Amino acid sequence: MFQVLKTEGRARRGHFVCPHGTVETPVFMNVGTQGAIKGGLSGQDLKTVGCQVELSNTYHLHLRPGDELIRRMGGLHAFMGWDGPMLTDSGGFQVFSLSGLRKITEEGVTFASHLDGHRIFMGPEESMRIQSNLGSDIAMAFDECIENPSPYEYVEKSIARTYRWLERCVAEHQRLNDLPETLNPGQMLFGINQGGTYADLRIRHMQQIAQLDCDGYAIGGLAVGEPTETMYEILDAVVPYAPEEKPRYLMGVGTPSNIIEGVARGIDFFDCVMPARNARHGRLFTWHGSINIRNERHKEDPGPIDPECSCPVCRRYSRAYLRHLFAAEEILGLRLAVTHNLWFYNTLMARIRTALDEGAFDAFRQRYSAVLAGRAVED
Amino acid sequence: MFQVLKTEGRARRGHFVCPHGTVETPVFMNVGTQGAIKGGLSGQDLKTVGCQVELSNTYHLHLRPGDELIRRMGGLHAFMGWDGPMLTDSGGFQVFSLSGLRKITEEGVTFASHLDGHRIFMGPEESMRIQSNLGSDIAMAFDECIENPSPYEYVEKSIARTYRWLERCVAEHQRLNDLPETLNPGQMLFGINQGGTYADLRIRHMQQIAQLDCDGYAIGGLAVGEPTETMYEILDAVVPYAPEEKPRYLMGVGTPSNIIEGVARGIDFFDCVMPARNARHGRLFTWHGSINIRNERHKEDPGPIDPECSCPVCRRYSRAYLRHLFAAEEILGLRLAVTHNLWFYNTLMARIRTALDEGAFDAFRQRYSAVLAGRAVED
Repeated sequence: MFQVLKTEGRARRGHFVCPHGTVETPVFMNVGTQGAIKGGLSGQDLKTVGCQVELSNTYHLHLRPGDELIRRMGGLHAFMGWDGPMLTDSGGFQVFSLSGLRKITEEGVTFASHLDGHRIFMGPEESMRIQSNLGSDIAMAFDECIENPSPYEYVEKSIARTYRWLERCVAEHQRLNDLPETLNPGQMLFGINQGGTYADLRIRHMQQIAQLDCDGYAIGGLAVGEPTETMYEILDAVVPYAPEEKPRYLMGVGTPSNIIEGVARGIDFFDCVMPARNARHGRLFTWHGSINIRNERHKEDPGPIDPECSCPVCRRYSRAYLRHLFAAEEILGLRLAVTHNLWFYNTLMARIRTALDEGAFDAFRQRYSAVLAGRAVED
Repeated sequence: MFQVLKTEGRARRGHFVCPHGTVETPVFMNVGTQGAIKGGLSGQDLKTVGCQVELSNTYHLHLRPGDELIRRMGGLHAFMGWDGPMLTDSGGFQVFSLSGLRKITEEGVTFASHLDGHRIFMGPEESMRIQSNLGSDIAMAFDECIENPSPYEYVEKSIARTYRWLERCVAEHQRLNDLPETLNPGQMLFGINQGGTYADLRIRHMQQIAQLDCDGYAIGGLAVGEPTETMYEILDAVVPYAPEEKPRYLMGVGTPSNIIEGVARGIDFFDCVMPARNARHGRLFTWHGSINIRNERHKEDPGPIDPECSCPVCRRYSRAYLRHLFAAEEILGLRLAVTHNLWFYNTLMARIRTALDEGAFDAFRQRYSAVLAGRAVED
C-alpha cells in the first residue's frame, strides 16, 4: 500500500494507496473535528484548498451525532460530503484531554462526556467499532496519551498496556473488516508509539508494535508540553526503529518549521489544528513568517495576505478587506482566513514533495525551517 | 434604462440596465450589510446562489471601515469582490433604527454611532457622498423613516421635509456623478415614497417625488409594525401614482408571500434580511412552507431540505447532516442554511418571472401565496 519513491537523508517521498484515493507523501491532514472544518469550510472546500486526507475525531462524533447514526446515513464520507481519503483518530487523546473524571483499567477507560457529563466506557474494541461505523480509510489504535513529563515507571507500565490494547485493536479491526455489512472493508489500522520523553521506552515500544504488522505507525504523545528540541531528539531516536516500508505519522504536529524538521527525520503524515485555529484568531501564514491580520497596519493595505500565495483568498481579496471582516466580526473573515492557512499548509507539503522529487529538500529546509518557525514578521 | 417587457394585471416583467449588468425583474436583492453576507458568504458565493443585485448598507460601511477608505481601495465592488449590480441604501433607516440619541433638523440628522457612541451628522448631501464613495450602481435618497403608526400631522410635515431632502439628493448626486474622479459616473438614484399608513399622504408624496425624474421609486416605511393587510392597502393605493416607466422598489419586504403579493401590486424590486436571518436560526424555506432544521424530527432524515430544490446544499447534504451542524454549533451550518435560503428566494423570483413570461402569474400566485405566507409545515 505504501511505496517510498525517493529519499534524501531520512526524508522520504512516497505514496500511499487508500480505499478513497492515493495520497502523495509527505502529507498534512486537514482536521474536520465534527464532520465540518472549523471556520465554516465544507468537504467540498477541502478540495479547493488542496487537502489530500481529511481527519475526523472519533470522540466528538461518537458523542454527537453518534457513530451509529452516521453509519445509518451511509458513513462519514457520505454524511459530510468528502469522498477522498479520511483518517479517524482513536478518541484516546480527547478522552484524556477533554473529558472530566476518568478511570483507566486494563479493559479501557471510563470517562465523563464533556457535553453533558454522562459516563461512557471506551476501550480498544469500542474505538474500533466506532471507527468502523464512521467508515474512515485509516483507523487509529486506541492508546493512552500521557502528559510530558510523566514518571518513568508510569510510562513503562502505560506502554505495556498500550501494546496489549494494540493487540486487541488489531484483532477487533480485522473482525470488523471481515463482516459482510462493513462500510469500508479496506479500512487500514495504524499503531501508535508512546513512551513519553524516554528514548529507551520509545524504542522498546516501537520494536514491540512493529511486530504487529499495522498499515502504518504513528508517533503520539509529542508536542504535549515538552520542549521542541526534546521532540526532535525523540524522533531522531525512535524513527529508525519504525518499519521502513510503512508510513509514519507524527500526531498533532505542528508549526511549518516542525513539519519541515519532522520530514527531515523521516515522517510522512502530519496533522494539526494550528492552521485553522490560528486563522480564527487572525494569525495568517506567509512565506516570510506569520502576520496578524487584525493589526492596524493592514487597515489600508491593498495587497494580498501573501504575494507569493495563489490561494482563492490571495487572488481576490486585500489585507484591508480581511481586516475589515475581522473588525466587523463577519463570519466570512474566519472562513477566508482558514481557507488561506489550510492552502498554505497544503502548499507547504507540495513544495516539500517537489523539493524531495528534485533532490533539493536539504536546500528547502535550510531556506525555510527558521523563517517558518512560528515567528511573526511583524511582532 | 428600465423596460417593461410584459404585464399581467398590475404585475410587471421587466429588465433594468445598470452599469454592472442588466437586472431581470421582479428581483430580490441579497443583503450584504457590511461588505459580506451574514453567515459567511462572499461576493463570489452570491453568484452561486443566483443573486442579481447585492445590497450594501451605507450607515454600517460609513462607520466601519469608512467609505473614504473603501473609495481608496477602488470602491465597494473591488473591495468585496462582487462585480454585479449593487444598490446602497441611504443610511436613513439605520440612523432611525440603530443609533441612539438623534436630532432631526432641516439640514439632516445628528446621531450617535451604535458602535462607540460618537456623534455623526448625516444629511442628503452626506448620504450621496458616502454612496458615491462606495460606487454602487443605485444610490437611495436620504429620507426620514417614521414608525407606524405616527400622528398624521407629524407624517405630513415629515414627507414635506423628505421631499425637500430628495431635491437636495438629486442635485448633489448629479454634481458627484459629473466629477471627473467619480468611481461610477453612471450611478443612478432612486427616490423614496413615505407617508406612513395614510393613503392620501402616500399619494401626495408620490406625486411630488415623481416630478423629480429619479431613476426609480421606492416605497419605504412599510413592514415596520403595521398589519400586512395595511401594507397591501397602501400599495394598492400608491403604486398607481408611481411613474409607469420607472422601476418600483418595496423596501425591506418580506416573506415569500409578501413578495408574491407585492409583485401582484406592481412592485419590481425587493430586499429583506429575512432569508439570511431565518437561516441563521435554523428556519429554512421549502416550497411547502418553512421547516426548523434544529427539530428532533430531522435527526435521521437522509433527505434534502427540499426535494424540489436544486441548490448546492440540497444536492449534497441531508437534513440529518444540517441538523448535526446546528447542534454542534459548526459555522458551516449557518453558511449552508443561508446558501439554501438565498437560493430559495432567488429561485422564487425566477419562477415569478417565468410565470409572468408565460402569462401564468395569477395561477402561480393562487398556488403559492398562501402556502408561502410564513407558516411552517411542521409547527
